[in-house]
Amino acid sequence: MQDKSIRIEKLVPKNPQGLVVVITGDGKGKTTSAMGMVLRACGHGLRVCIIQFMKGDLYSGEWDGVKRLGEQVELHVTGKGFCGIRGNPYPWAEHRANAQSAISLAAEKLASEAYDLVILDEINNALKLKLVDLEQVLALLDQRPIRIHLVLTGRSAHPEVIKRADTVSEVREIKHAYQKKIEPQPGIDY
Amino acid sequence: MQDKSIRIEKLVPKNPQGLVVVITGDGKGKTTSAMGMVLRACGHGLRVCIIQFMKGDLYSGEWDGVKRLGEQVELHVTGKGFCGIRGNPYPWAEHRANAQSAISLAAEKLASEAYDLVILDEINNALKLKLVDLEQVLALLDQRPIRIHLVLTGRSAHPEVIKRADTVSEVREIKHAYQKKIEPQPGIDY
Repeated sequence: MQDKSIRIEKLVPKNPQGLVVVITGDGKGKTTSAMGMVLRACGHGLRVCIIQFMKGDLYSGEWDGVKRLGEQVELHVTGKGFCGIRGNPYPWAEHRANAQSAISLAAEKLASEAYDLVILDEINNALKLKLVDLEQVLALLDQRPIRIHLVLTGRSAHPEVIKRADTVSEVREIKHAYQKKIEPQPGIDY
Repeated sequence: MQDKSIRIEKLVPKNPQGLVVVITGDGKGKTTSAMGMVLRACGHGLRVCIIQFMKGDLYSGEWDGVKRLGEQVELHVTGKGFCGIRGNPYPWAEHRANAQSAISLAAEKLASEAYDLVILDEINNALKLKLVDLEQVLALLDQRPIRIHLVLTGRSAHPEVIKRADTVSEVREIKHAYQKKIEPQPGIDY
């Protein structure tokens, strides 16, 4: 359904260029926002690679959701869950090993130039938890071919990452259902 | 790609219930976040209805992106663009008429119970611009069947809407590419 009386304009940038986007903060809507960019990018025919750094031990709807988008979108779940919370049983060294593989994968994917949008989901947390090093993240930013959009999500984004980004949003929690003891609900919270 | 050594847990809430989620603030990532919930909800097999209150005169990637998700997702673009900005040529009364139709559509969709997730995109702006009335928005919240998730996006969310919501995030703009005179880029900004 669309109002047929409206002239629809389609923007085409004179200078197409890849953006570095950081979505940080303590509120709900960081990974979710990145997934929205995936959906939007698909509409434009862009090719997308998602690497999830922390997630892995808890099913999240986007794992199946992206399958609907076809071969244009690739999702790599490389983590072992959130290090140190939710009774996560894996030692730091294992989390670090997984995150290190994810960094190599990210470098490889960026270098392949097979994508228009690369999402490094929760990489900010991985950096905060020292699962990856600042130098490694900055190297990814420096090595990124300029035409590729790179999105970095997760709370506690490092100031050096923010400094190098084009667009940065902080998602603040005003309130959250868990404060009313409401359980996480599928489709909204995971 | 997924670490095969990990046991994946799938949460199932003991008390499934619809949430009212508000995504507000001046930063990038409100509609985008709602679109991420659409993708995630699809992964869980939920049925989704999106009503875009303000957008309509400017192509946005999610219009085609959601088509990939199949019949499970319905998108209604009811607006005439952002009232009063970007050289938008339509008078307020026309915007109001469109927004009023969108409110009726939202009421109808919520009452139909044919969806698990209903997204009222940019309804906060529509309220701020008096294209819809507070009483109308509160009536939607009150009439919502409790099992349906309702997501309201847009800057300047009304305090009464925030009061009734379960989860509220404020997306703050830390910086944005337009400040460096970078044009909006497809897949990221629209």
